[in-house]
Amino acid sequence: MTSYFRKSIAALEGYVPGEQPSDPLVIKLNTNENPYPPSPKVMQAIAAVGPDQLRRYPNPLGNLFRDTAARVFGVTRDMVICGNGMDDILNLGVRAFSGPDAALVYPTPTYTLYSVLASIQASIVREVAWPDDYSLPIDQLVAARGQVIYLANPNSPTSTFVPVADVARLADAIDGVLCVDEAYADFACDNCMELAKTRKNVLVMRTMSKGYSLAGLRFGFAVGDRKLIDGLMKVKDSYNVDAVAIAAASAALDDQAYREQTRQKVIAERGRLADALARLGFSSLPSQSNFLLTTARRPPARQLYESLKARRILVRYFNIPGLDDKLRISIGAPEQNDALIAAVKELTA
Amino acid sequence: MTSYFRKSIAALEGYVPGEQPSDPLVIKLNTNENPYPPSPKVMQAIAAVGPDQLRRYPNPLGNLFRDTAARVFGVTRDMVICGNGMDDILNLGVRAFSGPDAALVYPTPTYTLYSVLASIQASIVREVAWPDDYSLPIDQLVAARGQVIYLANPNSPTSTFVPVADVARLADAIDGVLCVDEAYADFACDNCMELAKTRKNVLVMRTMSKGYSLAGLRFGFAVGDRKLIDGLMKVKDSYNVDAVAIAAASAALDDQAYREQTRQKVIAERGRLADALARLGFSSLPSQSNFLLTTARRPPARQLYESLKARRILVRYFNIPGLDDKLRISIGAPEQNDALIAAVKELTA
Repeated sequence: MTSYFRKSIAALEGYVPGEQPSDPLVIKLNTNENPYPPSPKVMQAIAAVGPDQLRRYPNPLGNLFRDTAARVFGVTRDMVICGNGMDDILNLGVRAFSGPDAALVYPTPTYTLYSVLASIQASIVREVAWPDDYSLPIDQLVAARGQVIYLANPNSPTSTFVPVADVARLADAIDGVLCVDEAYADFACDNCMELAKTRKNVLVMRTMSKGYSLAGLRFGFAVGDRKLIDGLMKVKDSYNVDAVAIAAASAALDDQAYREQTRQKVIAERGRLADALARLGFSSLPSQSNFLLTTARRPPARQLYESLKARRILVRYFNIPGLDDKLRISIGAPEQNDALIAAVKELTA
Repeated sequence: MTSYFRKSIAALEGYVPGEQPSDPLVIKLNTNENPYPPSPKVMQAIAAVGPDQLRRYPNPLGNLFRDTAARVFGVTRDMVICGNGMDDILNLGVRAFSGPDAALVYPTPTYTLYSVLASIQASIVREVAWPDDYSLPIDQLVAARGQVIYLANPNSPTSTFVPVADVARLADAIDGVLCVDEAYADFACDNCMELAKTRKNVLVMRTMSKGYSLAGLRFGFAVGDRKLIDGLMKVKDSYNVDAVAIAAASAALDDQAYREQTRQKVIAERGRLADALARLGFSSLPSQSNFLLTTARRPPARQLYESLKARRILVRYFNIPGLDDKLRISIGAPEQNDALIAAVKELTA
C-alpha cells in the first residue's frame, strides 16, 4: 500500500521531545523546565475562570495577554501575537516565510525542531555551522540568502549567547526576516526586544514555558513590526490560545517581580553547578540559559547519561556527531543539583 | 516595499471568525456555542490542576484524553489524536494530505475555513456544489480525484446531514482519504464513527466546543486507522494540547450522561425554534446540528440581521451568493430563543 500522506510527511522522522517520565521521584533535568512553581497569581487567575468563559469562544487574538505584553515590553498591542506554545509561533514563521521556493537559514547545531518544521513545509533549508567560539557567523548567514533566518539566542543545546549588536548587524545586512528565538532570554544578560521595536524585519519569539514556569500551559508569543504580526495573524488558527491559557499567561507576565526572583535563583544555581562540574573535570560552555552543555571525558557521555538515568536522574544526551561527547543538563532546584553533583562525583571517581 | 511573506500568504484574506462581543447582555446566537455550561466535572478537573502540572511539559500525546476516547468510542488509544481545537485537527489534515501537487476536494457551501487553510498551504482545491436537496454528490466528489476530501456532516452553514451509508459508499469509491468533519455530530441522529473503525481511509474529526460546551478550551480530536493517526502525529506540534485542557476535556468526555442531557435540551429547542420561525413565514433546512439555516423573505436577510443586532441579538449573516438571503441562527437556551422569536415577530410584522 502506498501512503496517503504527502511525500515530505511520509518520509519524515518527526521531532522527538525529551522524555516525560511518569515516576514523580525522577530528578528531571532533561527538558529545561523551571524548577520553581509559577507565580501564585497564575493559580488565582485559573481559579477565577468561570463556566461561561469555557462555554464561549475565547478572544481570538488573546488581547488580554497582548495588552499585558504591550505594557511590560513598551510596545503596542498590534506588535504582539500569541501562540499555543513557542512551537506554534515557530511553526507560524516557517509556514509564513519559507517553502519549496523560499529558504529557511539557521546556524547549527540548534533546536532540532527547525529542520522538522521545514521538512513538513517542504522548505528549502540552508544550514550554516556555528564557529568553534559560537560567535555569530554573520557573513555566512548573509551569504546563504534566505527568505528567513532562525536564530536561537541563547542557543540550544549550546547555551551560548551572541551580542545584540551582532544580531542588529545581521538584521540590517539581509533582505529577509530574522526570527530571534528567545525561549531562554529570561536567563540571559541581554535580549533583542529593542531590535523588534526598531527593525521592520526582526521578530522576537518568546515562551512562557521557561522563565515563567508554564511549560504545561503552552503559551508563546512574538513581538515585531505591525506588518509582520498582521501577516502571521492570517496563518494562525482562528482561536489558537484558549481562555484558561490567556488568563494564566497574562497573570504570569504581569508578575515581573516573581519572574525576577526565580530568574535570579536559577542564575545563581547555574554558576554553582558549572563550578562543581568544572571541579570534577567537566568543561561547560558559558551559559546564558537555564541549562549547561557540558563535555564529559570519562566515562563517555552516553554511559554517564545511562548511569544517571539508572539512579533516576534524567539529563539530555544527543546521539548526534559533535554533540555525542556532551550532556545537556537543566538547572534544577538546589537539592536537585546537589543530587546530580553527588551522582556525577561517584560515577566519575 | 515588497512583502516578506510567501505569495500565498501575502494574497490571503484570512478567515474571519464570528463576532465575539464583550457586552455580556448580548444574546449570542452567531457562533454555535452551546447555551448550557460544561459538565461540573470539568470545573473540578481544572481546580485539581496543581502548579507542578503547569511547570512541567504536558504529556505530548494527551494520553489521558486518548484513553478516555478509546473507552467512550470503543477504539484503541493509537486510533486517537488530540488537537488544540478542531481547527488544529483540520489544519493537520490539510497539511498532511494536500499541497501544491495534491488536491483537497469538498462540497460547497461549507465551513469557509477549508479554503483558507488550503490557501495557506498553496494546495490545489476542487470544489463540488451541493445539489439543491443537499444529498451527497458522490459521483462528482469521486470524479474530482482529490488526495483528500473534507466532508462536514452535519454541514455548516446548511445544518444538513447525509446518511452514513452514503459516506461509506464515497469512502470505498476513492483512492484518497476522507475526513469527516463531525463538529456538529453531537446533535445529529447518526455519525460516521463506525467508518473510522472499519475503513483504512476515513478520519472522523470531532470537537469538544459544541456538544461539550468547551469552545473556550480549544480541544478537538480525530479517530481513525492507526497509520493515519501515526502520520498526523508527525505533523502536529510536539505538545499541542496543554495540561489544563487535557484534564478538562477528559472530564467532559467522560461525563456522557451530562452530554446527553444538554444534547436533548438543544434538540428539543431546535424543533421549537424551527416551528416558531415557520409560523412567521421562514423556511429552515432540516437541521441535524445546533443551529438553523433559515430563509428570510421580508425584510431581506441583511436588514433583519442588522435590526436584530441593534436589539442586541447576534445571528450570523453570510454576504455570499446563495447564502445572502439566509440567516444562520444558533440554538440558544429557551429564554434566548423566546427573545429571538419575539424580536423576529416584531421585525417581520
